[in-house]
Amino acid sequence: MSWDVLIPNEEMEAATSRLLETAALVGADSYQARNAAQGTHCKIGEQGLCCRICSMGPCRITPKSPRGVCGCDADGVVGRNYLRFTAGGSATHSDHGRSIAMTLYRSSANGNYNIKDPEKLKRIADEWDIETEDRDIYDIAHEVALRGLEEFGKPFGRLRFLKRAPEARQKIWRDNKLSPRAIDREVSLSLHMTHMGCSSMPEALVHQSLRAGLADGWGGSMIGTEFSDVLFGTPKPVDTTANLGVMEKDMVNIVVHGHDPSLSEMVVYYANDPEMIALAKKNGASGINVCGVCCTSNEVAMRHGIPMAGNFLQQENVVLTGACEAIVVDVQCIFPALGPLSKCFHTKFITTSNVARMPDSDFIEFKESTAAENAKQIVELAVENFKNRKPELIHIPNLVSKATVGYSVEAIYDTLDTVANSHIDEFQTMIPLIDCIRSGVIRGAVAMVGCNNPKVRPDYAHIELMKKLLANDILVIVSGCSAQAAAKAGLMDKEAGKYCGEGLKRVCRLANIPPVLHMGSCVDISRMMILASDIAKDWRIEISDIPLVGCAPEWMSEKAVSIGNYVVATGIDTFLGIDPYTDGSKGIVGLLQGDIEKWVGAKFYVEKDIEKLGDKMIERIEEKRAKIMI
Amino acid sequence: MSWDVLIPNEEMEAATSRLLETAALVGADSYQARNAAQGTHCKIGEQGLCCRICSMGPCRITPKSPRGVCGCDADGVVGRNYLRFTAGGSATHSDHGRSIAMTLYRSSANGNYNIKDPEKLKRIADEWDIETEDRDIYDIAHEVALRGLEEFGKPFGRLRFLKRAPEARQKIWRDNKLSPRAIDREVSLSLHMTHMGCSSMPEALVHQSLRAGLADGWGGSMIGTEFSDVLFGTPKPVDTTANLGVMEKDMVNIVVHGHDPSLSEMVVYYANDPEMIALAKKNGASGINVCGVCCTSNEVAMRHGIPMAGNFLQQENVVLTGACEAIVVDVQCIFPALGPLSKCFHTKFITTSNVARMPDSDFIEFKESTAAENAKQIVELAVENFKNRKPELIHIPNLVSKATVGYSVEAIYDTLDTVANSHIDEFQTMIPLIDCIRSGVIRGAVAMVGCNNPKVRPDYAHIELMKKLLANDILVIVSGCSAQAAAKAGLMDKEAGKYCGEGLKRVCRLANIPPVLHMGSCVDISRMMILASDIAKDWRIEISDIPLVGCAPEWMSEKAVSIGNYVVATGIDTFLGIDPYTDGSKGIVGLLQGDIEKWVGAKFYVEKDIEKLGDKMIERIEEKRAKIMI
Repeated sequence: MSWDVLIPNEEMEAATSRLLETAALVGADSYQARNAAQGTHCKIGEQGLCCRICSMGPCRITPKSPRGVCGCDADGVVGRNYLRFTAGGSATHSDHGRSIAMTLYRSSANGNYNIKDPEKLKRIADEWDIETEDRDIYDIAHEVALRGLEEFGKPFGRLRFLKRAPEARQKIWRDNKLSPRAIDREVSLSLHMTHMGCSSMPEALVHQSLRAGLADGWGGSMIGTEFSDVLFGTPKPVDTTANLGVMEKDMVNIVVHGHDPSLSEMVVYYANDPEMIALAKKNGASGINVCGVCCTSNEVAMRHGIPMAGNFLQQENVVLTGACEAIVVDVQCIFPALGPLSKCFHTKFITTSNVARMPDSDFIEFKESTAAENAKQIVELAVENFKNRKPELIHIPNLVSKATVGYSVEAIYDTLDTVANSHIDEFQTMIPLIDCIRSGVIRGAVAMVGCNNPKVRPDYAHIELMKKLLANDILVIVSGCSAQAAAKAGLMDKEAGKYCGEGLKRVCRLANIPPVLHMGSCVDISRMMILASDIAKDWRIEISDIPLVGCAPEWMSEKAVSIGNYVVATGIDTFLGIDPYTDGSKGIVGLLQGDIEKWVGAKFYVEKDIEKLGDKMIERIEEKRAKIMI
Repeated sequence: MSWDVLIPNEEMEAATSRLLETAALVGADSYQARNAAQGTHCKIGEQGLCCRICSMGPCRITPKSPRGVCGCDADGVVGRNYLRFTAGGSATHSDHGRSIAMTLYRSSANGNYNIKDPEKLKRIADEWDIETEDRDIYDIAHEVALRGLEEFGKPFGRLRFLKRAPEARQKIWRDNKLSPRAIDREVSLSLHMTHMGCSSMPEALVHQSLRAGLADGWGGSMIGTEFSDVLFGTPKPVDTTANLGVMEKDMVNIVVHGHDPSLSEMVVYYANDPEMIALAKKNGASGINVCGVCCTSNEVAMRHGIPMAGNFLQQENVVLTGACEAIVVDVQCIFPALGPLSKCFHTKFITTSNVARMPDSDFIEFKESTAAENAKQIVELAVENFKNRKPELIHIPNLVSKATVGYSVEAIYDTLDTVANSHIDEFQTMIPLIDCIRSGVIRGAVAMVGCNNPKVRPDYAHIELMKKLLANDILVIVSGCSAQAAAKAGLMDKEAGKYCGEGLKRVCRLANIPPVLHMGSCVDISRMMILASDIAKDWRIEISDIPLVGCAPEWMSEKAVSIGNYVVATGIDTFLGIDPYTDGSKGIVGLLQGDIEKWVGAKFYVEKDIEKLGDKMIERIEEKRAKIMI
């Protein structure tokens, strides 16, 4: 089969090579160079067998020294490192959720942040037994926000959103003592359990990893997603463009990068301010172009159609175009390298959060109370910087794809309504989708998520796996940097439907959707949990029986491991292309890739060969179908 | 000067050597052997220059690869590792505090846990504006406990106990944005800040380390200490014995080890149960002897005079005596090695907490609601095990010292009252102590704390430093494993006063105290913060002006680093004998051992040469004296 209307990986790689020539010219560093300089990674560390948890070490578990000074063995060391890795991810996602909850708490009719989706707010309020009738929408918002903030630290009780899962799944969590208490408590407990002289039993460490993960997916991340929708609007399908070619040669290019939409929303707003546009023109530009990198890009693309310049490993590329007036960042996944790199160009590297302070940046603290003036200042700084471009360094690769993004669960329901039979079907159900899967028109679905990682040929695994799955009539839902990989390659173009197998091709045409559905940023994997729950409820089967698997072929961040834990604990098998530093322990591998299936009905698969990874997912989906006899 | 009535280190080391012969006989492992097997520790890891925070690595910062794949440099990598190390300690201490708060919340007149110090409870209630008049003491307890539990996760506000510090110190915290919010939030934020692509600026990372530390010392640890006093009684001076010789050849020896007094208190109670003693006699023993290891030992020694078998690096020794029927543990600093080791003897290794699950142990889950039956079951198991002793393996070293322990702040006030002049002085003030320091009879004080670490000759640094300080008329206050080092050596024997300089000798005689004052376990370093605050208030000087320094010459755990951070942030210089994996960054070392003094009036000193470490402390104390012109 030919993929000729899509942008092949080789073409993107050629563009990167061209940009690296500019890097060489200005003496700039690059991740490719740093990765090469690192050489072979420490094998002990990569296997999870290095312990630095107390200062008696670092201890290395080897055949000659099978235990650390304290007596901890490979299982204990690897298991502790795994739990800490998870806790890092859970804390990070959740702290993002807290920040959104704080923004909601401070929202007001006349303030910087307003309620864009009052209906969704009321739905959450109803769910949480908060009075909505005859109340000011901001009163409701503040009470919902407060209840949300309490989820991080309430002394008693379990997380409120757990009740969104099917009863059978909730029972599995209760029976296995997996229902998280307060979010931050699970993080702190994870650190406590892994402190010197605490847990070294693999079952205990993996159990808490699952629970800390659930505190993220059904706690912090879900709060982040839901409250973001309330504040900034629930995503609906919207057309946009993707890849480095979205940067405009004649415009002021402001790249927003990071995760929290509170910043990017405001930057987008002020980039459209006539005063700012006038200023841009005065400075010789034809206008202001905001485009995104990483999850911030997902957030603003799916709410405003803001173009997606690229994903994680493209962040240096946007600066290397020489046409980036400012790269404005908040938190997470931001290369500290952007500091020194931006100094090689005219680019302003603007940090805005106390959570992510980086050297060689301009720091403009972004606060809810002063968000408007902060954003205006940032846009102004970028606009004024246009004149400092070095024309000889400008090169924007001619790569642009069309993409339709913004498939929130709500949007998926609405899309399914368009194919429901108005005479006999109920609306706002998952039945049309379930019918497609049941009949075999669609074989199943894969949730492709996660980052890039130089250990894997960047984007290649994402894109090749998607192509393979689509050809096998498997629907792909995506988020995070995987979503951008798809968008850049053109797989979110509705035209890409033609590359699917016959069944999925027909579904895409009838429903008028691209074959790869963009569900948002990495916190938005919580949307996928709701989707799976809703499918299970309407289908009246367990989540673990749905022909659905998760996949993170190029992941790199702790958040990805936290996600993996909650996806698996929700009953969805998860396929990883990179081992989470667990290879050194048979006990931990035996649990994660084996025995936890007895607890939660799902497990991890780790497979570095991308071809095999795809085959295994397809095989697993067919196994699931066989199990429920469809 | 001769120290001949004290037990010299060499004698303790000889006893250990003798016990290691038994280990060799039964084929048991030991920390000494494992430490030797580890060989030279990884230099990159030891300098803090190894980053495993995302899966693009592990990255090593070296001259050839000065940045990780993401671009993070030495300062960022070391700083992140340091903040995570701190967060691990803060979470661990604080989760212990939470557990005590939960116990207080569930206390009842007829239940397993009662209020032993209602006066202290009422003092805390008053401090927190909780009504006490005409209220049932358990109603007050439950409200205080709930407020305490909320400290871990309240969405708004700063920690309640911060107000105990002198106003000047509170102002420093406010001005430097160091006042912690909810305890767990500071932990989660620390993980977020150190996530891939977040903070890499040394100032930000060290700043949050101080704040996360303060959340421990003035939050979780202080809650742990204060609520433990309410539940189990505020310590008063009590006589006990210390060192391995406290184990009794003819009795059932139950060793309690860990940190949380909720378990050990109950074990102590049931070990005194006539029914259990009768059972012991039936099994051929003359009775039941409970003795302690690590901080649990401090807890029960200072409340019940339970003998102290030893500190951190003595935990294997108690099993190696062949006379340990059960080693009963809860959380933290427990060698996983105790599992396989106990299998070489008749010893039962009993784990009790879901926080610390270890292989090769008998797990008896210890819950508040079933504490009595759990404790009884544990004692019974130990008693029944007496008959399984292997007589040929029994060897209890003939080492015992006398010790007077239990100098809570309340006990120090009471002691000072005994030397106040009832005609002219007010009672319950720090004035008598301040007068001694001001006049130079005592030159100052050192808070000696922290663990053992095979990187330092065990106990040697603690004991030699104490001897040096005492000889220089410097009062020593101690906690944790440092306290046990002192007790084992005989430095808590009131007779040891004679080894002090002339001034301190006289003070010890007049006040009838040992020259080394036992202030409790490692969470009880919060007591030292109150002591310093009260001295500063009564003296009307800043804490950082008191001739007082902290010292952890043999520390090994993350908790010690968290402690170091809050001690320094409270204005007390802290001297470490082991570098906290920071050596690889000039930026981080420059802050911790230099510039943070500008923020908080104190800093760290790292000095591996014990002789020099002592000299530097004395020098610093004299500098402090000179500064306030005394």
